[in-house]
Amino acid sequence: MYIEKIDSPKDLKDLSIEQLSVLADEVRAGVLNRVSNHGGHVGPNLGFTEATVALHYVFNAPEDKIVFDISHQSYPHKMLTGRKEGFLDVSKINSISGYSSPLESPEYDNFEIGHTSTSVALASGLIKGRDILGGTENVIAVIGDGSLSGGEAFEGLDTVGELGTNAIIIVNDNEMSIAENHGGLYGHLRELRESKGLCANNYFKTLGFDYTYLEEGNDVGKLIEAFQKVKDIDHPIVVHIHTEKGHGYAPAVADKESWHWNFPFNLEDGSPKKQRGSGEYIPQMLGKWLFEETKRDPKLVCISAGVPAILGFNEEIRTKMGKQHIDVGIAEEEAVALASGMAKRGAHPVFTTHATFMQRTYDQLCQDLAVNGNPAVINVTGSSIYGMNDFTHICFFDIPMISHIPNLVYLAPTTYEELIAMESWAIRQEQYSVAIRVPEYGAHHAKEPVDTDYSDLNKFKVAHRGNTVAVVAAGDFYQKGEAVVKALQTDGIDATLINPRYLSGIDEALLEDLKKDHQLVATIEDGSLDGGFGERIARFYGPSDVKVLCFGVKKQLYDRYDVEEVLRENHLTDEQIVEDIKRIIK
Amino acid sequence: MYIEKIDSPKDLKDLSIEQLSVLADEVRAGVLNRVSNHGGHVGPNLGFTEATVALHYVFNAPEDKIVFDISHQSYPHKMLTGRKEGFLDVSKINSISGYSSPLESPEYDNFEIGHTSTSVALASGLIKGRDILGGTENVIAVIGDGSLSGGEAFEGLDTVGELGTNAIIIVNDNEMSIAENHGGLYGHLRELRESKGLCANNYFKTLGFDYTYLEEGNDVGKLIEAFQKVKDIDHPIVVHIHTEKGHGYAPAVADKESWHWNFPFNLEDGSPKKQRGSGEYIPQMLGKWLFEETKRDPKLVCISAGVPAILGFNEEIRTKMGKQHIDVGIAEEEAVALASGMAKRGAHPVFTTHATFMQRTYDQLCQDLAVNGNPAVINVTGSSIYGMNDFTHICFFDIPMISHIPNLVYLAPTTYEELIAMESWAIRQEQYSVAIRVPEYGAHHAKEPVDTDYSDLNKFKVAHRGNTVAVVAAGDFYQKGEAVVKALQTDGIDATLINPRYLSGIDEALLEDLKKDHQLVATIEDGSLDGGFGERIARFYGPSDVKVLCFGVKKQLYDRYDVEEVLRENHLTDEQIVEDIKRIIK
Repeated sequence: MYIEKIDSPKDLKDLSIEQLSVLADEVRAGVLNRVSNHGGHVGPNLGFTEATVALHYVFNAPEDKIVFDISHQSYPHKMLTGRKEGFLDVSKINSISGYSSPLESPEYDNFEIGHTSTSVALASGLIKGRDILGGTENVIAVIGDGSLSGGEAFEGLDTVGELGTNAIIIVNDNEMSIAENHGGLYGHLRELRESKGLCANNYFKTLGFDYTYLEEGNDVGKLIEAFQKVKDIDHPIVVHIHTEKGHGYAPAVADKESWHWNFPFNLEDGSPKKQRGSGEYIPQMLGKWLFEETKRDPKLVCISAGVPAILGFNEEIRTKMGKQHIDVGIAEEEAVALASGMAKRGAHPVFTTHATFMQRTYDQLCQDLAVNGNPAVINVTGSSIYGMNDFTHICFFDIPMISHIPNLVYLAPTTYEELIAMESWAIRQEQYSVAIRVPEYGAHHAKEPVDTDYSDLNKFKVAHRGNTVAVVAAGDFYQKGEAVVKALQTDGIDATLINPRYLSGIDEALLEDLKKDHQLVATIEDGSLDGGFGERIARFYGPSDVKVLCFGVKKQLYDRYDVEEVLRENHLTDEQIVEDIKRIIK
Repeated sequence: MYIEKIDSPKDLKDLSIEQLSVLADEVRAGVLNRVSNHGGHVGPNLGFTEATVALHYVFNAPEDKIVFDISHQSYPHKMLTGRKEGFLDVSKINSISGYSSPLESPEYDNFEIGHTSTSVALASGLIKGRDILGGTENVIAVIGDGSLSGGEAFEGLDTVGELGTNAIIIVNDNEMSIAENHGGLYGHLRELRESKGLCANNYFKTLGFDYTYLEEGNDVGKLIEAFQKVKDIDHPIVVHIHTEKGHGYAPAVADKESWHWNFPFNLEDGSPKKQRGSGEYIPQMLGKWLFEETKRDPKLVCISAGVPAILGFNEEIRTKMGKQHIDVGIAEEEAVALASGMAKRGAHPVFTTHATFMQRTYDQLCQDLAVNGNPAVINVTGSSIYGMNDFTHICFFDIPMISHIPNLVYLAPTTYEELIAMESWAIRQEQYSVAIRVPEYGAHHAKEPVDTDYSDLNKFKVAHRGNTVAVVAAGDFYQKGEAVVKALQTDGIDATLINPRYLSGIDEALLEDLKKDHQLVATIEDGSLDGGFGERIARFYGPSDVKVLCFGVKKQLYDRYDVEEVLRENHLTDEQIVEDIKRIIK
């Protein structure tokens, strides 16, 4: 085993090409060991194993800087830069994250990375910084073909193409995004592959780059040759390598989309280690409903931005939806502008993506959509403390982001039925731009019929009118509000329970009315306290005698946290909320 | 005069090419009449006059849909679509806005537009909507060469290039952005122009477009011919036309950058109608300081995103700064990622742009910058009720946008000296990602020495310790706080005055201490109440007996408002604030 002796890239330098090829296989086995036991990104890492070995053989990290895009392909790099135990030793998997992270390896990882299309832009800074400080190191940005669809990748390339100094862009072309690629550029990449990079028309050259192509992107020897040719180059160059997603593991090659990321599986045949939970999961239920709705409403078009799986839109369903589904690639800005334009033209567009990726669309939500008031529907998924918990994938800062945008309605359904009612209304109405926070935590069902019309904005729903204390609990933490009110009842407090439904405004008449017989209003939200909906209520009652207690989480960075711990630290368990309330009204 | 008879594009249809050329000159005169009297975008409109006449001659708006990019070139379109009085009649200029606006013309303007690089993306929605609904109209997106540097333009092109149906993109290439163009793409556009579009390498073709080039972009007859060839085309095509920015007005041709937008001027020679105010304006003073600082600090690099004029960085200063200034084109996402990368490498990057354009960088501020904690400096300009007041250019929603991003420090200096002190500290420190809200309103100077170290985060500054009432007044509304405290003094109330300095957090120890002898805390900010810094203070005091009054403006869309009126409506005059405070503590 060569891998056992590799503690840093320096340990690769004396190996022969043959030995490096064996090492690549060992690295592949390490990747498979990790993902089969722990889950994680499979295909992108397997396809970039040889290239990573070659990169670390040719270049001298950490002096030379390698920047990964989205870092779905950084596992082999981690194995070669002192973190192999996270791959070879099952008991140590959790010590290593699934993404590029300077917190984990200040020496070898240059950035915390988890969003697509950033590598070239971030590398442009390393390049400009190097040039200003008189450095001489190579700066290498790795970017997948899928990530090229993002606007930031274009902006980065356009800038680097003009810098005129050493810049090496490795385009890792595995003919796939997470799902298939979308965009006119992909026909062109095929043309480049088919002509072995020789066709006259060349995207990268139009942006100012020198260019070279390597067909054998999984051949360590050929890769080394290609990288040696560009090492210490004095101008920007794109090295376009053709790799195979999932290379070396048959199941991952056979079904590249399913194996982009996978749950733990049996190595022999790729079968899942555990049967996936058959429980209800609202985003997938929404996907099913939307699919059925496309049959009923010919104007309805579901928009994805590279991650159709969020709604369970697999290849079969996408094919069935035909023209009523459009995937724009990893291009969230385009997705929102597209939705706005479609709504303007009279179609019924629904764009869905995770809150962390929706961050890309802040300006488009404001300008392209809300300023125009076009009646598109934006589904925001993953927004919960119970959602994805990787450093770069936190989704519970969506309320500060979205709820303060003028002329944008932000709804927070509390049950599946309320979600579908809001969705139906939002799709059909022609008055408002509407965003909907899809419940992520739990799969609750309405106990009573839900309203069908939400055009009377900011009208909160009173589920129970009590006195002294009012609990306003939003979205998928509404049931927490129910539990709190129930617990208070046993303490003899007949608390009011309110489902606010709207995150983008307050029901002033109702809040005013509560002043009559309430001492305290408690707000509960599954997200950030700072900029959250609770603060708006605190402001409303600021000049009055009514006290306000806001429950939510602290503004800070979060990484692979324990949910229960975060809840406790933020006084978000049912018991803590009850105690805090009782302390105020004692 | 033909223009007198043009009330809609239908009135053009019977004119001959010669008559249309005369009409174009009349339109040009109308544009000049407006901008010379009122100020506005000069060069872009003059250069697109002939193309607009040709577009409306060949295509049938409003059935055919024309989408303008940023709409700096939409004046001629307005003149031909029923709004000529805003150009010909000086008394009616204010009835017409400077941007594309369905509120103004629901028939002929498809979107409210004021940010760059959106036209193709918005048009993609009109195209997809048309195709879903079975329409047959032409969809035409106009985009300038400068706007091509924005990621959203790329994403839009990449999507449209694949739609496979009628889509006509007019690339209006005047060889200029607002200032000169930046990015590798621009060398390529030159190549296209020099080869008359015949070079094999072609950016637009790489994205899936058919392509045609017209050198004579200011020749009505040639333009009509070119547009007629693509009318009703069944696939996406780029019509690349070479125009002259400022065409037909010598001063605007001679100095294209200064004449992109101009204040009112004398038509004979282009001299300004009024001498520009010689008063101090802090963003320009900051620019001067930064320029001087580049001489003292060789690591300092000032980053612009297409609008170097914000800091007064004219061509002479940019040349003097040399490598210590970089303009990335209209590519704000890249600008933030570049800054993060440079800071990581040890340089001292400072990126400056208006708050409304900073919206483009929400995800980059979060992910590329703050998650990494790289010590770059982000200057946010224009953020004030007193700033730009066009519908799409409102800058006072920056506090909700920026202040809730985890791990990003947002500072609000109150005077020029405090700004420079914060700037100096932020540039030199290596601990935090720092954004600074550059004072837009007034040019105040510190009366006492300002602090030089801001690393003790969220430490508010108590200017005067009184009792009963505390006024926390942020940034360029600090002086309003001073006035309020002074007025309260005359009423016998010795109010505490606090400069919060930090918009991204609160000074809990100080706020706790105020509870001892204060009944009311009033917050004043030059921006949105919703998601503003006042709400965070309202939440802090929510469970206590201290009352809170937040002063700021209502969340809503704003357009060409009267500042004093907005202040009054929002109870933001000094007198109203004093009254409201007195009403509470009575």
